[in-house]
Amino acid sequence: MKFSIDRSKFYKLLTTVNVAIGPKSPTPAFLNFKLEMNDLGLTVLGSDNDLTIKSTLPIIENDKVLISDYECGSTLISAKYLLEIIRRLDSDVVELDIIDDVIVQISDNKSHFQLNSMKAEEYPDLDLSISGVKVGFKAEDYKKIVVQTAFAASTKEVRPILTAVNAKSDGKKAEFVATDSYRLAKKSFEVSSNPFEANIPVKALTEVSKLIENDDVTLNITSNKVVFQFGNTVVYSRLINGDFPKTSRMIPNNYPFVLKVNGSKFIDAMQRVSLLAVEREKIVKLSLSDNGVEVSSKSEQIGSANEKIELYQYEGGRFDISFNVDYVSDAIKAAQSEDVILSFAGEMNAFRVTSSEDESIVQIITPVRSYY
Amino acid sequence: MKFSIDRSKFYKLLTTVNVAIGPKSPTPAFLNFKLEMNDLGLTVLGSDNDLTIKSTLPIIENDKVLISDYECGSTLISAKYLLEIIRRLDSDVVELDIIDDVIVQISDNKSHFQLNSMKAEEYPDLDLSISGVKVGFKAEDYKKIVVQTAFAASTKEVRPILTAVNAKSDGKKAEFVATDSYRLAKKSFEVSSNPFEANIPVKALTEVSKLIENDDVTLNITSNKVVFQFGNTVVYSRLINGDFPKTSRMIPNNYPFVLKVNGSKFIDAMQRVSLLAVEREKIVKLSLSDNGVEVSSKSEQIGSANEKIELYQYEGGRFDISFNVDYVSDAIKAAQSEDVILSFAGEMNAFRVTSSEDESIVQIITPVRSYY
Repeated sequence: MKFSIDRSKFYKLLTTVNVAIGPKSPTPAFLNFKLEMNDLGLTVLGSDNDLTIKSTLPIIENDKVLISDYECGSTLISAKYLLEIIRRLDSDVVELDIIDDVIVQISDNKSHFQLNSMKAEEYPDLDLSISGVKVGFKAEDYKKIVVQTAFAASTKEVRPILTAVNAKSDGKKAEFVATDSYRLAKKSFEVSSNPFEANIPVKALTEVSKLIENDDVTLNITSNKVVFQFGNTVVYSRLINGDFPKTSRMIPNNYPFVLKVNGSKFIDAMQRVSLLAVEREKIVKLSLSDNGVEVSSKSEQIGSANEKIELYQYEGGRFDISFNVDYVSDAIKAAQSEDVILSFAGEMNAFRVTSSEDESIVQIITPVRSYY
Repeated sequence: MKFSIDRSKFYKLLTTVNVAIGPKSPTPAFLNFKLEMNDLGLTVLGSDNDLTIKSTLPIIENDKVLISDYECGSTLISAKYLLEIIRRLDSDVVELDIIDDVIVQISDNKSHFQLNSMKAEEYPDLDLSISGVKVGFKAEDYKKIVVQTAFAASTKEVRPILTAVNAKSDGKKAEFVATDSYRLAKKSFEVSSNPFEANIPVKALTEVSKLIENDDVTLNITSNKVVFQFGNTVVYSRLINGDFPKTSRMIPNNYPFVLKVNGSKFIDAMQRVSLLAVEREKIVKLSLSDNGVEVSSKSEQIGSANEKIELYQYEGGRFDISFNVDYVSDAIKAAQSEDVILSFAGEMNAFRVTSSEDESIVQIITPVRSYY
């Protein structure tokens, strides 16, 4: 195998695939890129066994020759070192050349690197088939769905199922739901596909969101994996086993207390006041009444803080509730609208955060007990 | 004590003084700012006992009223919380008001904070006298001297004397020297002062360098402390006890091998090649001869790298030497000139890095043994 390649395109290809490569793997082969040069282009594959990314750089793109002087073949090269070398070289074109199957020479006009390499056959067998229910998204729709739900998933591995986003559809309406059991984010939208249900790891969803740029993306969902296709790239992810919790039980039906506020100003006020809420991690109290709306916090050792909210609409009587500022801030940001509506069912009931413009996104948050 | 104050000026005053406050102090009073309001302005003081900063915001500056509606007095307020509150408020003016000597109320039109405070008398006594040998610097000269020497001091507390810069003068010529025992940086310049010698902690020198902006700075050196005066700010630092090593012994007299290169291109080449020098921390070999100049590295497990240096002048015969890339890169950067001169005395002797334009700065680096 041998080729001359546009350095910046090659570097982008490697960074894309590198997303799937964990820094530590019990299988040494997974620390490598698998490179395969053929007459269609250079294909690079990386995997940590759970997530696999395969991306291809064509020989010619938009009439520009990206790869020249090539001989077909394949090899495994250390992902860490190849990526760093290609990043640090400063020429427009670099050459790769496999010598004796076990050494790859990487060079431009000035610098010469010789890296130990492995035969492509030493790479583990992976299931790279693509099948299942196809669901298509425009790039911006996909990114919006992910940003509005993924943050609410758990980051802890104690209950692996909660690190997934539950994606399901009856073939017409689809729903993406994530919850860490303290809060929940649900996005509804219309699709036209066969019915599906899948617990997709948040990592796969968010990494694809970063990689797709402006490409449309197609999800291929089977019972044990999801395959994302976009541009010249394919991302394979296993699904998470188990039953996703029945989240509809978390959502109250009736909200007698309803507050409408400017989202970003409300976040600023909560963040300021939460400064002194050090004994209980960023918990503030929201006090609502016909006379005004106020957020406050109190710490025996340090002091107290309060701030009146300007520009609000409130319906419902006198009502106090305490909550984690970051949960409410996340929910307000996910609503992606200037004004947000906070709807409360009662002091110890979960409450709802919705956009004033977009009913397809619903956020539910569990309050905490108030101590003062 | 009470005042209304320009918020952004107040925030800047607090960040300046906060530089002296350590996040953890065995003396709780040192976790506070000491504020003192009088008819000259607001003075804020912070200290960790080794380093003390005192800075004053005048009541009026350039015809603009910065402080109004004040009552004289003093207090201690938690540095961490006061700084964060003033940072996060978004009004132009904030009000401080001490209530009953133990609570400070901080507010703008919207937000209200009440912080527990302490009486000013509870602050430890500090020696804030200013005496000793006076040495004056223009801001840019001071910053240059610090940037050219401070990096070479030790960051480890094993030999505290090596965490200082040795500043000394016979009254006409002055020298700042720093060494971590593997490398040395020496800056010479002319002064007109009484003779002095002081081992100044690098931290004090570099923090003052960040704070002075365009102000001239005066150092007041006694046998146990140095006081920096600039603008409305005074910085007090203890000196480090002990004898600074006789560094002149580290510097060879005769250099038969002399290489002149473009500094930044040489750094880039070394950094690229050192990528594979993982078994020995960033050690590369420099090979010099009449036929060319090359840097290289080698690792049994990973591979090898080499790069020819373009655009160089070399005098001396065939010669190889190995060294730490970061030490040489630091020295080249400190030289602050496009071309640098590397002068070698022998394979196992310390070598010199100098600017091609400025003879006042000399860098000495110890090589390492070459293994291939």
